[in-house]
Order: sequence, then C-alpha cells, then structure tokens
Amino acid sequence: MDFSLSPDIQDLQQRTRRFIADVVIPFENDPRQTGHGPNESLRAELVAAGRAAGLLTPHASVEHGGLGLSHVAKAAVFEASGYSPLGPVAMNIHAPDEGNIHLMEVVASPSQKERWLRPLVEGRTRSCFAMTEPAPGAGSDPSMLQTVAIQDGDDYLISGTKWFITGAEGASFAIIMARMEDGSATMFLCDMDRPGIVLERLMESLDSCFAGGHGVLRFENVRVPATDVLGEIGKGFRYAQIRLAPARLTHCMRWLGQAQRAHDVALAYASERQAFGKSLGEHEGVGFMLADNEMDLHSARLTILHTAWVLDQGGRGNIESSMTKVICSEAIWRVVDRCVQILGGRGVTAETIVMRIFKDVRAFRIYDGPSEVHRWSIANKIVGARKKMLDAERP
Amino acid sequence: MDFSLSPDIQDLQQRTRRFIADVVIPFENDPRQTGHGPNESLRAELVAAGRAAGLLTPHASVEHGGLGLSHVAKAAVFEASGYSPLGPVAMNIHAPDEGNIHLMEVVASPSQKERWLRPLVEGRTRSCFAMTEPAPGAGSDPSMLQTVAIQDGDDYLISGTKWFITGAEGASFAIIMARMEDGSATMFLCDMDRPGIVLERLMESLDSCFAGGHGVLRFENVRVPATDVLGEIGKGFRYAQIRLAPARLTHCMRWLGQAQRAHDVALAYASERQAFGKSLGEHEGVGFMLADNEMDLHSARLTILHTAWVLDQGGRGNIESSMTKVICSEAIWRVVDRCVQILGGRGVTAETIVMRIFKDVRAFRIYDGPSEVHRWSIANKIVGARKKMLDAERP
Amino acid sequence: MDFSLSPDIQDLQQRTRRFIADVVIPFENDPRQTGHGPNESLRAELVAAGRAAGLLTPHASVEHGGLGLSHVAKAAVFEASGYSPLGPVAMNIHAPDEGNIHLMEVVASPSQKERWLRPLVEGRTRSCFAMTEPAPGAGSDPSMLQTVAIQDGDDYLISGTKWFITGAEGASFAIIMARMEDGSATMFLCDMDRPGIVLERLMESLDSCFAGGHGVLRFENVRVPATDVLGEIGKGFRYAQIRLAPARLTHCMRWLGQAQRAHDVALAYASERQAFGKSLGEHEGVGFMLADNEMDLHSARLTILHTAWVLDQGGRGNIESSMTKVICSEAIWRVVDRCVQILGGRGVTAETIVMRIFKDVRAFRIYDGPSEVHRWSIANKIVGARKKMLDAERP
Amino acid sequence: MDFSLSPDIQDLQQRTRRFIADVVIPFENDPRQTGHGPNESLRAELVAAGRAAGLLTPHASVEHGGLGLSHVAKAAVFEASGYSPLGPVAMNIHAPDEGNIHLMEVVASPSQKERWLRPLVEGRTRSCFAMTEPAPGAGSDPSMLQTVAIQDGDDYLISGTKWFITGAEGASFAIIMARMEDGSATMFLCDMDRPGIVLERLMESLDSCFAGGHGVLRFENVRVPATDVLGEIGKGFRYAQIRLAPARLTHCMRWLGQAQRAHDVALAYASERQAFGKSLGEHEGVGFMLADNEMDLHSARLTILHTAWVLDQGGRGNIESSMTKVICSEAIWRVVDRCVQILGGRGVTAETIVMRIFKDVRAFRIYDGPSEVHRWSIANKIVGARKKMLDAERP
Repeated sequence: MDFSLSPDIQDLQQRTRRFIADVVIPFENDPRQTGHGPNESLRAELVAAGRAAGLLTPHASVEHGGLGLSHVAKAAVFEASGYSPLGPVAMNIHAPDEGNIHLMEVVASPSQKERWLRPLVEGRTRSCFAMTEPAPGAGSDPSMLQTVAIQDGDDYLISGTKWFITGAEGASFAIIMARMEDGSATMFLCDMDRPGIVLERLMESLDSCFAGGHGVLRFENVRVPATDVLGEIGKGFRYAQIRLAPARLTHCMRWLGQAQRAHDVALAYASERQAFGKSLGEHEGVGFMLADNEMDLHSARLTILHTAWVLDQGGRGNIESSMTKVICSEAIWRVVDRCVQILGGRGVTAETIVMRIFKDVRAFRIYDGPSEVHRWSIANKIVGARKKMLDAERP
Repeated sequence: MDFSLSPDIQDLQQRTRRFIADVVIPFENDPRQTGHGPNESLRAELVAAGRAAGLLTPHASVEHGGLGLSHVAKAAVFEASGYSPLGPVAMNIHAPDEGNIHLMEVVASPSQKERWLRPLVEGRTRSCFAMTEPAPGAGSDPSMLQTVAIQDGDDYLISGTKWFITGAEGASFAIIMARMEDGSATMFLCDMDRPGIVLERLMESLDSCFAGGHGVLRFENVRVPATDVLGEIGKGFRYAQIRLAPARLTHCMRWLGQAQRAHDVALAYASERQAFGKSLGEHEGVGFMLADNEMDLHSARLTILHTAWVLDQGGRGNIESSMTKVICSEAIWRVVDRCVQILGGRGVTAETIVMRIFKDVRAFRIYDGPSEVHRWSIANKIVGARKKMLDAERP
Repeated sequence: MDFSLSPDIQDLQQRTRRFIADVVIPFENDPRQTGHGPNESLRAELVAAGRAAGLLTPHASVEHGGLGLSHVAKAAVFEASGYSPLGPVAMNIHAPDEGNIHLMEVVASPSQKERWLRPLVEGRTRSCFAMTEPAPGAGSDPSMLQTVAIQDGDDYLISGTKWFITGAEGASFAIIMARMEDGSATMFLCDMDRPGIVLERLMESLDSCFAGGHGVLRFENVRVPATDVLGEIGKGFRYAQIRLAPARLTHCMRWLGQAQRAHDVALAYASERQAFGKSLGEHEGVGFMLADNEMDLHSARLTILHTAWVLDQGGRGNIESSMTKVICSEAIWRVVDRCVQILGGRGVTAETIVMRIFKDVRAFRIYDGPSEVHRWSIANKIVGARKKMLDAERP
Repeated sequence: MDFSLSPDIQDLQQRTRRFIADVVIPFENDPRQTGHGPNESLRAELVAAGRAAGLLTPHASVEHGGLGLSHVAKAAVFEASGYSPLGPVAMNIHAPDEGNIHLMEVVASPSQKERWLRPLVEGRTRSCFAMTEPAPGAGSDPSMLQTVAIQDGDDYLISGTKWFITGAEGASFAIIMARMEDGSATMFLCDMDRPGIVLERLMESLDSCFAGGHGVLRFENVRVPATDVLGEIGKGFRYAQIRLAPARLTHCMRWLGQAQRAHDVALAYASERQAFGKSLGEHEGVGFMLADNEMDLHSARLTILHTAWVLDQGGRGNIESSMTKVICSEAIWRVVDRCVQILGGRGVTAETIVMRIFKDVRAFRIYDGPSEVHRWSIANKIVGARKKMLDAERP
C-alpha cells in the first residue's frame, strides 16, 4: 500500500499547477469565450502556451508526441489542469479529443494515426465523437442506434442525425458510430468537410468549457471509404467501451480540479467575510459545509487514484470506473453547490468563477452515462454474480 | 379543517392558468430577453396582455386598482402565474415590485401612494429595493449596514453602495435603506433620476427571470427631502420585516409554479421516451424521482397554504414563513434538479424550458435569507423559548 | 382554506394530552413490558385508565361504543396519544386492532359485529390480521399469497403459514387472508382457539410498542364456517385496500406523536446541556438539526391533515395516503435519528425514551408497504395518467 | 501509488476470514450473550479459539506477544474480524482494550507494562477507559472534566463519576482521566478492586457488541500511588489524543466489517427473493440501494487505508482520521440502514444478523466524537489555516 506519487509525477503536477495559476487563469475573463467555449483564436493561443510550457497532450504516447502518462499520473496532472475551466483546452486534454486520442492509439491503423492522430496530438486540430442521437435514437441505451452505414462498393454511405456532439463546430474530423445492416455497429473516421455533413445548429448548453460547444450533426449519405473504418467492422460497441472507461475517469479528474477551485474560492471568502460577529467559516452552518467539501474532495480523489491504478495494472476497471464516475460526479456536484451557497448572492453571479463552474459541472452527472445507468449496471453485476454463486451452491 | 379553495379563487386560478398557457408561454422564446430579464418593450407588451386579461397586480388593494387578494388566494394565483418565468412579469407580481407594493400599502403616506404606488400598481413603472450591500456591508446580517443618511436641513443626504439590486435598471424609483447617525435605519423613497444615483453596472447572474436584472448602485450624496421618508424615521429594520415575511412567501408561490412546470416537462418526457425496452418513467430509477417530485411539490404547496392562512388570520407568521421558505426553496430545488436528471442531455440544454428554470431557481435558497440564516433563526426561537420554560420551572 | 381544528376536536386533543402526560407516561418504566410489548396485565390496566378517561376506542362508531371521530379528528387525537409508546394501547387505537375495527365496521355482518367487534371496541379483546407470509409467499407483492382456503361443504379449510403477525399472541381472533381455488382472495374471521392454529414462535423485533409483539402462525386445515367469511368471498384484496389506506394514515398519526416526543426530549436537552461555552442548541450544528426537526414535523403533520380531510370528504385518497405514508415515515425517521444524535451517548441508551422510540419507528418505513413500493405505485399512477393523456392527444 | 496488500497481509486477512466464518459465526446465537455483550465464559471460549488460530491481539508489539501489525495491516485484518460482531472479542481487538493496549505500549513504564499490559495482550484480562462523564461533566468537550485527583503524600485521591464506561463490568483495571488542581489532566492506572470504586449500574444500550457493556462508575476517594500514574502528570489530554486517532480508525475498520456483512446478507436475499415477477435485486429501487452500498463500502475502505498509510508513515493524521471517522461512520450507517430496508420485515427482526448490526452501528456516529464535533474541528483547521495565509498576504 503506497499513496505517494513518484517524484516525476509530483514535479509534473507542480509544473501544471504553476502553469494554470500563472498562465491560464489570467485568460479566464478573455472575451473570446462564448456559451460554446473558447473560440479558435483563444484556443490556439492557449495551446501555444501549453506547448511552450512543455505540457501539451501529456497523455499521448511518447511516440506520438506526448509524455506517455500512466493513469495515475493523469489523475495528478489532469486535476491540476482542471483547476481552470480553460486548463484542459490549453493542455489539449479536453473532451472529446482526449478520449479520441486514447481510442485511436489503441485501434487506429498506422496510416490513420499519421493522418488524424498526429495533428490532433500536436493541438493543430480538434475532433468530435459522433455517437449520441436524439429520440428515438441512441441516448443512454446504445442499442437504439439509428444512424446507418450501408455498404456501397468499397465505401460506406452514412446517414442519420447525431446530437450533443461536443466540439463538432471547428472539428477537423469526426469518429462516427453507425449501425450496420446486421445490427452491429462500426466506427468511421471522417473529415468534417466531406459532402453530406451538415452542422444543423449549436445547442445552447449549461456548460461552456468545451471548445466548439455541442452541435447537432446530420449525415446525408456521407461517403466514407472502407480504409477509414476505425479498427474493424462491427466492433463499434466494443470500441465504445474501450474509450468510455478511461474517458469517464479523465472527466472525473478534470472536474475534480474545478471542484477544488470552487472550494478554494469559497474557503477564502468564508475566512474573510464577517457576519453576526465572526467570519462566515466560524459559523458551524458554513464550517460544516466546508468540512463536507473536504471530505467529498478527499473521497473523490481516492476513488480516482484507485481506479487509475487498476487500469495501470491492466485491469478493465469496469465496475470501478462506474463507481468512481458516480461517486465523483455526485461528490463534485455537492461540493460546487455548497460553494455557491457559502458565497451567497455572489455565488449566483459572475463575481467569482464559481457560478461558471456550477454551470459546467451539472452535466457531469449525465455525461458518459447518467448516475442511474451506472447504478443499474453496478447492481446488475453484483446481483448477477451473487445469483451465479447461489445457483452453484444448489445441489 | 378545510383544504378547499373558494369558487372565486378557483375561478381566478383557472383564468390565470389559461392566460399563462395561451398568452404568456408563446413569448418564452421571444428574443427580447437577455440574461437580465425581458426588456422594457417585452415587459410592456406582457403587462398589456395581463391588463387585458384582467389579471394585473391582483394582490394590490382594490382601492389602488388590484383585486385585493388574500394570502391564500395569492398562493393559488401566483403559483399558476409562475408556471412561466414570464408570468409574474405579465401579471405585475414579480419581485421586487410585488413586495414594494405590499410595503407601501402598509406604510406609505397618501401622497406617496398617489405619486409612486398608483403607477406601480398600474404596471406603468417599476421599482427597486436598495438594501443589500457588498462586503463589508449588509448581506445576511442587516446590522452591518454601511449606507448612511445624514440630515441636512429638511433633507437627507444618502451615500453608499448597494448591490444585487433587482430591477435597478429601468426602475422609476427606489426604496433605499440607510443607516442614521444614531445607528437606526430608515427607508427612503427616491426617484432613480435624482442626481448622485449611479448604476455602476449590471451583474451577470444565474437567473434571468427578473426584469432589469440585478445592478450595483452607488449613491453619492443623493438629496432626499424629509417628506420622502417611507413611514417613520428609524423604523427601517421593522419595515424590512413587514416586507420580508410575505415577500418570502410569494417567492415560494411563484417558484413553486416553475417547479411544477419543470416536473410536467420531465413527466411528459419520461412517459414518452423509451430506453432499455420501456418508457423511462417505467424504470424505477426514473419513476422514483417522479414520485419524489410529486411529494416535494405536495409538501411545499401545503406549507405555503398554511402560512398564507396564518397571515390571513392576522398572524405574523415569522417562524412559519421561515420554515416555509426553507422547505420550499429546498424542495423546489430538488424537484428541478431531478427534472434535469430525468431529461438527461436535453436537461442541460435549451431544448426545454427546464434548463432556464434550473438557472432561475438556484438562487432561491439564497435570496431573502439563505437556508442557513433561517435554520439558525428557527433554532434560536425554539431553543430560546425552551430555555425560558426551563428557567421558569426552576425553583 | 381553514387550518383550524373545531373546538370539540381541540378539547379532545387537550384531554388526550393530559391523559398521556398524567396517566400513561408514568407507566413507561413499568416492568410488565418486554420486547413483545406490554403484557396483558399492563394492557388491561392501561385500557381501564383509558376507559376511565373517556378516551377508549374513540375512532369506533358511536353505535359500537366509540366517539365516531372523523379522520381529521383522529389526526389530532392519535398524534397526542402516540406521544407515549403506551398511549395507543391505553386508548385502544393501536395496530392492528384499530384497522381491524375500521374494516369490520365497513364490511362485517351485524352478527359478526356483535360477536367480534363489540368486545374489541370495548378493549376486552385483541385481534390480529393474518396476511403477510414468509418467502416465497406474500410480502410486498400480495399476488404471491400461498395460504389457501379450500371449500369443504359449508366450511372452508385454511392451510398455510403467516408471519409478522402483530398481536397474534394473546389475540382472541384473527382476520385471515387466504387464496381461493380460483386465485382470488378471501378474508375469514376466526377465533384463535380453533383447532389447527399454531403460534409457532414470537419474532424478536426491533420495535416493542405492539401488545403481543409479532408472531409466526401456522394454519393446519383450520375449519371455518362460511358464515365467518368477512364480507364476500373473493373480495379479500379489495378489503385489504379498504383497510390499508386509513390504517396507513393512523400509523402516521401515532408515530408522529412519538417523533414529537423525541424532539421535545432532544430540545430540552440541547437547551440545558453546555459544551464549548454555550448550550448545545446554540451551536449551529445542533440548532440546525432542531430546525430540521421542526420543519419535518410540520410538513408531516400537514400532509396527514390533508389526507385525513380528503378521506373525510369521501375521497379514496390512494395517492395521497401513499405520499403521506412515505413523507411521514421518512420525516419521522429523520427526526428521531437526529434526536439520537443530539443526545449523543445518552441517545443510544435507555437514559431517555428516545432510544426506544428509535427502535420503534425504524420499521415504519417498511410496514404497510415499504417506501419503495409506494414510490413505485405513485410513479405508476402518474406515468400511466400521462401516457393516457399523450395517447389521447395523438391524431 | 500502490493499492495492493503485501502477501503477508493478504495471508493474514484470509486466515482471519476463515476463522470468522468457520469458528466465530457459529457462536453468534450462543445464549451467553446479553444486551451487555458476551459474558466472561463466552469471551474466554472465543479468546481461546483466537489464540488457537494464532490470531490473538495481532496489533500488539511482537515483544508483548502480538504480531506487531502496521496500521495498513490492521485495516485488512480488523475489517475481516469485524465481519462478525463477536470477531473482535475473539481476537482481542475490541474497544476499549485495543486502544488501551496501543496507549500503554506508547506511554506505560516497563513495570506497568509487565503488570497490566502483558495479561491484557494475552487476553487474560480486560480493561476500561474512564474518561466520559455525565452532565455537567466532560462529554464531547473534554475541558469540562469534573473528576478530580488530589495529591495526598505519595498518592492521589480520585473522586468523581464516569459513565458510558465500556467494559467496566468485568474489567481488571481502568485507565482513569482526572483533573489536577492546576486544571491539567492526568491518566491513572488503577485496579478495579481498589476500595472506593463503585460500579453503580450498567446502562441499557442500543449496541451489544462490547464485552461488559457500558457502566456508570463512581470513584470515592480512590487512592492511587504516584507510581501508577500513566506517563507523566498533567499530560492526560495529550495522551487522550495519542489514543484517539488510531482508536477511531480501528473502530472504522471493525464496523466496516459489520457493514460488509450486512450488505452480503442483503445482497443474497435480494438475489433470491422474488416480487412482482423478478428478484428484488433486479428492481432498480433495490438494485440502486445495493449499488450505493458498494460505493459507500468502497469509499470507506479507501479512506481507512489512506489514513492507515499516513499513520504508518509517521504522520499524526489528525485531520485524516477525523475525516475518515465521519466518512466511515456515516457511510456504514447508510449501508446498514439500506440493508434493513432491502430485507423488509425481516430486517427489523432477529431473522438475520442485520438487525443486531443495525443496533450496534448507530452509536458509531457518536462514539469517539460525534460527527458534528469532527466537522467543527475539520472546519476550524482549514479556516484557521486559510486565515493565517490571508493574514500573511496582507501588506
């Protein structure tokens, strides 16, 4: 049992913290931000700063220009990066690119990597992941996939509508999930300027930390050559799993950073602001909220580190990442909600960064599987296992 | 014991519901809305519609052009109005005007009523209530009031800064709370175009249902004649209490309407949307949330009606309105948060009205005294009473 | 809208309070109490006191010797009675007799009433309600009923096992629920001394407020004449509903009394006991718990009164009584749990009555349908209604 | 970062699990148990079994006959032992002896160790820790200590009343905390058969897992020689801290074992018992509770391991052990409460071990500092530290 981080990781964590504090946070009021995230000009400037600091895309393999961080190392670094909503953009570790990079490292062909992965790792492009569909398509239940890919000679023709596609606007390419004629699913790599791809609209969303916001995409017989299939035909659902467990975990890391930030702001305020004869934080009503924050942050951090370690050991970490996702998204939410409450009126205004964090993190209880789907899945696994045991014990 | 509403109130409630559904809701996507609420053009149009429907300022006395509603009647009508974030604007029952009207009816002089109250009741003007101050001034603790009024002949010179002043932009006049040289507080009626009143800026806020948003006001030696003192000199804190208990309660009513709306949207979605082989609502994980919503809405409604009845009986309802404020603001919050969760991705986007309601209602746990201040005050009252009892029992 | 109680009810409520305080509470440490409730000697003494006070079986019809209380009147009186765990025994309004009396008033024949109901109302006998079965029989799901009644000439032969049968030991008669050959269910009235009825054992239970505790009953071909069928053959499930809604509500009333008692004990302690320089209750950490108690008690009381009023108006109150059961059982539980916490070490010992109340009330979240079954049922009703509406709107 | 346990610890954990399952659990219905724990005959038999299994007092130093377990090793072994309420007794790692052994190892003199520690480690004696006092004495606030020690030649005369003294009945000796004339506090070692020690009574308590239950002790001028002072005069509060942090943590470990047991029982039941057409666990309402249990157990375990590791590194772990105590005691409580709910009627009866666990663990939110005191202490620390930082930043 060892809870210490190696000196290397600690060093990188410290460098990240300084980078965020000194370089990134000053951009937080930059007017080049909208409800749909930082625009391309701001993003490019942030990425240049991340590159200059030697902190760009640290999770990518060394071969592709990253630092080849372990999951545990990511836990330390990504949390530090998430301390500013702009941090993950500056370090090119934001969703969905971070997960796409991971997925492509695992399943893309060498030429696909050269063409799509390398510029993505270098922060020169952005990508999107086109899976979620509006009703009656695939939301939490992937089996309801409506977007189809029909073979046409050596190509596939993709048709369907996707929504809630993060980063669609401004993305260079998409990974598209489509249903095959046999009911299986396949992932396709596809440049966004191909004919038939229509960005119908951007969705107004509560969060604003994602470059490109969230868009609705329509595919009208988009022609994709067989060589651009990502991995193998029919393995789309399996690849989605490969992508999801770690992607879920990096969400936890980044958003934990945001929660820590909110807590620090609330703690500073509660330590200064006087009411009824003492500082706010000396009132138990507020002090207890601060204590609960500490405990929630602590528990969340430990579950992340544990799951990261499981993945580093080669484990699939399915149940661990589900549990961690629920524990973290709910703990982080409680923390940020308490911070708003502690800040009082200023908590519900842009007087501090906390309101923005509040708006950013609400979705985390929904993204990558709502809490309810994870609880159901955890229950399923443990009840199923117990039933098997009980059956085995029967004569 | 009788939980029925009189036929008159039921009729008014029904008319309000129809007005909101048929007239107000169609305005919800009107582009004349910003983060600082509907603009004056939209407000005027809505108020005209409210007037045409015979539903304008129904809580004002008949003498001043209202319907003279009882508190119980308000409970029924204001909830129905709050079903749309624009409803209270259309019916001229929004904060802070609603509370200002109530306060002025009780303490303003006849000539003050003629000058300021009548046009306010008619929806021709708006007002603001300038009490809250930035640190180190009066937030939850009113004794920290920093804005001062210094006597100068027959006039008073008011200096200080107020913030979080709802409706300041566009208001015709303000009720200003200021500290006197003897430490007491006084309220002043003051036209907003008087020299020395500066609207420093509008605050970016989470909510957007208040016409005029929330502003920061600076008073630089604003000269107010003694005739414009509201009520008596030195009674500011007492008047604040007169205003607060009912104002708190009408907040509960209006926001309960918003919560009911969110619930109806979520329920309709959960009844239609399929996942994993049945409608969402047939999954216990979602169904339980809907059931909890029903229970929270039910409890909140009953506590509002009870406190309204206490006020109608002539009670001061201090502890009742504190309890109702906490119960409602927290129940309403849980309801709306669950609705977001049920709606999934669409809950955190503008695809439905729920995201807007979510942003509007968060502040309610803070406005008019955060939950913590009310809990402290309730505890104080009951522990104090018990101590007195215990002391009385001692030999 | 009227939240006042009539002078008659108020008077009865006051008399009940005095009776509990002056007569019943002094019995609370009487050694004639075991884990299975007060013994018959203590019960008889308490009932005699209740009779002397003119407070015995007040919910029974005047015709049968009661006071014919309305549901609203019961709300006031039963809560006052529940202030002591022994109160409902002393007033003969405890479960299951209270519900059995109600059911028999509605469906028993005149001769059945004379034979079984009259002595029960007079407090001379006790009864039990034999419905619940051990696995794989009928627990929360009544359709799994395993106890059978087979016709044999003019009689029925009943066989099966029931458990969790409150008051079985010492009961004069039972109402037995059994499955007919056609799958329907029937209720039978049956003296407990009939051949074939075996009280297998008493169950060790957390609660100890029920006279006779909870027993396991075995029926071995118990012969019951057709004249002892309660109501009509095949209507058992329907009668169970008739019994359940009001029985559920009276549970809420009585247990609310226990929660109020616990709160009063905790409040007195928190007002006296000093720690860290002031009384416990002046610490926000404790004061907030007291405030939450006040709010939970208030909400619970209002929902009970409302449902009682609905029943008094002739409504079936299905969804209301489900909501009230969940709201109350959970609010009461929170209250009592907080009281334990406030009392600290003494909360988990017999130094105060609170530990006993704590043990008594835990089961209320399970008895008469666990919270989960009620949530499911509420959800079912509202989702079903919405679906019907949506279907109706379809062209 | 390494979450694995060493092979040695894993082996000991496995041996403990087998010992509990094969040897200890069969004793759980042994009639030699009362509301005040196992009697001396049962305890002796269990201890003999623990000795035979080579698992007795494993946390004591090797020098004194233990296995010299690290804190991390204790985390693994004590949880496994706590799987049965009788496990800690059988392994001689129950409270208060476990903490007393730790304290004496650190501060007792060699001759004191020989006289009192050695037989205690060997399981031949039991001890108690006499600190807590009834009102108006030292409860959560140790500064209110009323028991005094007055110097009398080479001896001290101790007078006062202690209550909630776990294991007092049957203990061979006590560690007594008393106030000195200068206001400081001192700990004394004192055989229980000394003149002037009166066991006034045993307290009826909710828990029944402690051998000897909880007693009220009166000291009437108990004469203790100066040689029996534990450590140094005047350092009582400091020693209390030395004892408390690890004692708190071992409580977490043992009670986590109980919670895991309850969960396993509930999971097995939910996997078998059918209702409404499927197993209980397949109902989301139940499945979600099981999933929440898994997450609570997981988080609790991780925080224990982390704090144990901090202590093993030589850290004082004050804030960590406070956080872990609150997190664990509340998580464990939620788990066990959910298990009761899942089990329905049988959860509130002795049909399973869960009711007993439920009664045992409620006190954990109070023992060793109630949650409220820990929250206050955590808040104090972080607000204090922040204030210092803010002050340091001021010019």
